[in-house]
Amino acid sequence: MNHQMIIYILGWLLCFDGAFMLIPVITGMAYREKATLWFLPVMAFCAVAGFLMIRKKPASKTLYAREGYIIVALSWIVMSLFGALPFTLSGAIPNYIDAVFETVSGFTTTGATILNDVEALPRCMLMWRSFTHWVGGMGVLVFVMAFIPLSGGQNMHIMKAESTGPSVSKLLPGVKSTAKILYEIYIVLTAAQFVLLLFGGMTVFEAINTAFATAGTGGFGVYNDSIARFSPYVKYVVSVFMLLFSLSFSSYYFLIKKKFKLAFTDEIKTFILIVAAAVAIITVNTASMFPSVGKAFENVLFTVSSIISTTGFSTVDFEHWPELSRTILVTLMFIGACAGSTGGGMKVSRLIILFKGMGKELENMIHPKQIKKVTMDGSQVPHEVVRSVNVFIVCFLLVFSISMGILAFDEYDLITNFTAVAATINNIGPGLSKVGPSCNFAFFSWYSKITLIFDMIAGRLELYPMLLLFTPATWKK
Amino acid sequence: MNHQMIIYILGWLLCFDGAFMLIPVITGMAYREKATLWFLPVMAFCAVAGFLMIRKKPASKTLYAREGYIIVALSWIVMSLFGALPFTLSGAIPNYIDAVFETVSGFTTTGATILNDVEALPRCMLMWRSFTHWVGGMGVLVFVMAFIPLSGGQNMHIMKAESTGPSVSKLLPGVKSTAKILYEIYIVLTAAQFVLLLFGGMTVFEAINTAFATAGTGGFGVYNDSIARFSPYVKYVVSVFMLLFSLSFSSYYFLIKKKFKLAFTDEIKTFILIVAAAVAIITVNTASMFPSVGKAFENVLFTVSSIISTTGFSTVDFEHWPELSRTILVTLMFIGACAGSTGGGMKVSRLIILFKGMGKELENMIHPKQIKKVTMDGSQVPHEVVRSVNVFIVCFLLVFSISMGILAFDEYDLITNFTAVAATINNIGPGLSKVGPSCNFAFFSWYSKITLIFDMIAGRLELYPMLLLFTPATWKK
Repeated sequence: MNHQMIIYILGWLLCFDGAFMLIPVITGMAYREKATLWFLPVMAFCAVAGFLMIRKKPASKTLYAREGYIIVALSWIVMSLFGALPFTLSGAIPNYIDAVFETVSGFTTTGATILNDVEALPRCMLMWRSFTHWVGGMGVLVFVMAFIPLSGGQNMHIMKAESTGPSVSKLLPGVKSTAKILYEIYIVLTAAQFVLLLFGGMTVFEAINTAFATAGTGGFGVYNDSIARFSPYVKYVVSVFMLLFSLSFSSYYFLIKKKFKLAFTDEIKTFILIVAAAVAIITVNTASMFPSVGKAFENVLFTVSSIISTTGFSTVDFEHWPELSRTILVTLMFIGACAGSTGGGMKVSRLIILFKGMGKELENMIHPKQIKKVTMDGSQVPHEVVRSVNVFIVCFLLVFSISMGILAFDEYDLITNFTAVAATINNIGPGLSKVGPSCNFAFFSWYSKITLIFDMIAGRLELYPMLLLFTPATWKK
Repeated sequence: MNHQMIIYILGWLLCFDGAFMLIPVITGMAYREKATLWFLPVMAFCAVAGFLMIRKKPASKTLYAREGYIIVALSWIVMSLFGALPFTLSGAIPNYIDAVFETVSGFTTTGATILNDVEALPRCMLMWRSFTHWVGGMGVLVFVMAFIPLSGGQNMHIMKAESTGPSVSKLLPGVKSTAKILYEIYIVLTAAQFVLLLFGGMTVFEAINTAFATAGTGGFGVYNDSIARFSPYVKYVVSVFMLLFSLSFSSYYFLIKKKFKLAFTDEIKTFILIVAAAVAIITVNTASMFPSVGKAFENVLFTVSSIISTTGFSTVDFEHWPELSRTILVTLMFIGACAGSTGGGMKVSRLIILFKGMGKELENMIHPKQIKKVTMDGSQVPHEVVRSVNVFIVCFLLVFSISMGILAFDEYDLITNFTAVAATINNIGPGLSKVGPSCNFAFFSWYSKITLIFDMIAGRLELYPMLLLFTPATWKK
């Protein structure tokens, strides 16, 4: 285990964590909020600690898969523990566990909140919440890697562990250049949404926050009613961008390079099909609950986009929709977005591989001598990817059921527990029943909150880094 | 595809199906019930059709895996379609889909009922219901194979497809002798329970029915309150036998042969551990709801045994137990019994392989060059078994979620739908909410009932036969 290298990268991460806080500080200064001051000691601490950790360059820069997972898992934990401090110090969220919950929910782009009254928060705190979404969406280490003076292909292990989806490919030869191009696309899309929201009559503050929260597919809003108060135009803009941020970012890169065949992957086609089918069925199913079919479509498109992109914004309380619609929404929660997007869930490509692999195995039972391979986008899916997807499902079920078991001690109903775990491990935000779109997670006990914090990070990092962090074998020589 | 052989075995199956009806006919004659007459035309039809099908011996007796799955899937469907006729003809269950539901629930040892008032049924019908449990528990084709004039190791494919658990080993060199020894153990255990129940003051009729339903881990009772009316002694006898029938029958064989090491497998140890833990936690959790801790233990032991063995008898309505207890019970529903028992669920050994496989894969991520194997009972689990267990989970999730999707059209609550599918696919019987222990499945729509019928058969045959029956590749040349 290359301890020096782990400390070195964590050091850089702390420096960046501190630097990120400039955004809320500027916001706070613009609105002359006193709470802003509480960011300063945290920033100072991050800077000093970070600087001490990066001062000594590691003797060896070699990173194996193991260090990659550990660095990513530790980074996300450390970043959240520090990111939560301004909330507690300023008294905005007095309970530190609640503050960590909120911060983890931010970085992991979950968007589940423990706040009853979001509007009571100072604007600098709201901006920090939204900005954590933006940073966490694409991956904080991907960001760090685009800037810090590190070379060598071994950083790929870090990128692999932090990116979403069953397999990660470099768009450009270097990790650094790939990280940069991804963030460029990310910034352009976010800016585009920001401008379109301004046209819809949002204030600059509202538009920045909403764009950050959409880009990361996070879902923190600045109002208690989320997006409900805004015009249909704003709702459509947010709906479309939630879907855009659910697509693989590599597809945008190929689109720019005019490689259209590479851009329209099987995964994206399947994703579009699922969204279209879900919107159609739920619109028909709920039409009678809205003044017109148009209104139904507007709100259903918004809700479906919000759930499948795992953003978690809401315009209506789908808690009271018919059972069929609710079942579809719960299913969408697990499907999630495309690989290599900022969205959460199991990822469409993972499910494609899963079902194709299942079909292959079934055919194999019938014709044992025939060797068939799983293909996607016209080429063969490597055996290790198929295997890792199978293992992913098992890990997912294990984490899911243990979490349900712990939450059960709180004695809330099964739907609450089930959708609370589903909404956090899939990084969505709202669930059903007591954690529905008009509710929050404040009522859970401290151990349930810690469980859900674990689930959010595990879900965002797609399980392995967090599971390996707690596997004894990882720490053996 | 060896069509002749498929027809030949289905013919024998029909003959046996008709012969099985002698048991309710004798019962009906003893009680001079008119409804008994309706068994006769069905028996005659089975005999004639069966005889015509077995008259022509197949030219080739070769059976491949494919035919094995097809024969088993078709047998279970045909047997249920004919087995349901007496219910509908006699007017006991006027709706044929309901009658098929009840019969499939019987043969698959699920024990879910569509009857509001079980006690209104003639005794011959009650006996037929219970006897289907007994026949289905060990496997009807296992029974048929012990008797019909067929030799050759290829029948192993049929036995494999019908037996429970991730892998099946022959106890004796021949399939026929293995089938015979399994049924001998089965008969002795059933008889032992029958005698012990008589000591508890049950009538012969009650004791036979209860023994049949326990042996198959089915759960059909002859009273509306299931087992609740009987003495604590009877409850303890049933509890213990539910657990005994959840253990691998091969272990009993090794026990007789005094091979104790082979008898106490890792699976059985784990099973005992799970039962003990569940009983302990739920007893503490529900103690205040009972007059004494002793009474709590009695009912909790009964409920836990009933759920994990997937029998489905009930003494109390656990619908009103605290959430923690309910969550544990739902978890037990999925775990199920041991491989090679009459119980359902995913099977303990399958879960052991699943989690050991997961652990291995996680270690593999850390140390990619190290090759570790999954071991159980001191020896290595073959790679195909590990793979097939992974595929099983994926198939299970697929069937489960599609079923949930279809049930959603009925617009009942999520807990009802979720536990209805869980209780049928795992062959348990009662679920929670609208399908709780004091309720029944009558209110579902015809398409939901057909879905649940599919789930029961798919669950009993551990998915593959039913899935392959509907896979186009199966029917290709």
